[in-house]
Formats: sequence, C-alpha cells, structure tokens
Amino acid sequence: MPTIVVEVMPKAELLDPAGKAVAGALHRLGHESIRDVRIGKRFELHVDGEVTDALLATVEQLAADMLSNGVIEDVVSIHVADLTSADKVSL
Amino acid sequence: MPTIVVEVMPKAELLDPAGKAVAGALHRLGHESIRDVRIGKRFELHVDGEVTDALLATVEQLAADMLSNGVIEDVVSIHVADLTSADKVSL
Repeated sequence: MPTIVVEVMPKAELLDPAGKAVAGALHRLGHESIRDVRIGKRFELHVDGEVTDALLATVEQLAADMLSNGVIEDVVSIHVADLTSADKVSL
Repeated sequence: MPTIVVEVMPKAELLDPAGKAVAGALHRLGHESIRDVRIGKRFELHVDGEVTDALLATVEQLAADMLSNGVIEDVVSIHVADLTSADKVSL
C-alpha cells in the first residue's frame, strides 16, 4: 500500500520548548556539536490504489488545512514513500 | 548550518489513537482513498560544523536511546538535510 508522508515543523520564529529541552539534555550529556533541536510531526497517509497527481494535490490541501496549523507550523515536505512504519533503521 | 533529520514512528502493532482520529475525520470529509493515518515525530538536529560519520553514528545512538522509546516507537529514518524548518512546501 503506497504511503504519502507529510512533514510538519514549528515555524522558525517559534520557540519550540520541547526541542529546547531535548537540546539542553544533549548539551548536559556532552553533545555540544548539536546546537539546536526542533520537534515536528510526521504523518503517514496509507492510501488505497495508486498515488495520482489529483490525490497528491488533495493531500497538499489537507496538509495545509487539517494536518498543520498555519499560524504556528509549516508543511516542510510531502512525498511518496514505499516504506511502512514497520521499516526500521538498522543501527 | 547542516541539519540531521531523525524520524520516529509508532510501531506498526500499536493503535495510534491520534492517527485513527485523523483518518476518521478524513473519511467523514469524503477522503475514502486515505485508508489509514499514523502520526510520528520529526526531529531536526542543527549541528555545528560538518556532519562526520562519527557524528552520524552518535546521532543514531541518541535516536535509539533518547529521541525514541524502543518499546512503542521505531526510528524509521536518519538523514542529513540542507533545508531548515523555514523552508515551506509551495502549495
């Protein structure tokens, strides 16, 4: 089943306290080279059938209208992925 | 400033009630072709200097240990991005 991935991040001018907390924790652990952390959302939309241009256009509109809050968030990426959430990064 | 993006999703066998709620809302709006929605997290780590293999290895370890909960989440992607959260998708 094809998957459309929509990625949403807090706007650059917003503080993102959760990201700041993670960055602070990393600094305390000695990871000084990681200057800043920001935390956004990753939506996986699992779709029936083919991903058509019309469907992608619909998803772009849904990403702007429903999956993100335009006041505080930006949609940074919409792309089609073959992977499912079951795929893991091999560490 | 280079950015390392870490993407974390709830494990496939978990219910993800927030994703189910979004999928239900989309169905009520007539978007039947979107079968299922899952919601995960997208971390942007803004790093000083170059992204070395050693730094990437460190981030892989941090992603597994700190940025995700291995009981309920999978790290699905770790990649280097040039974009910042200020970049928007042109709709």
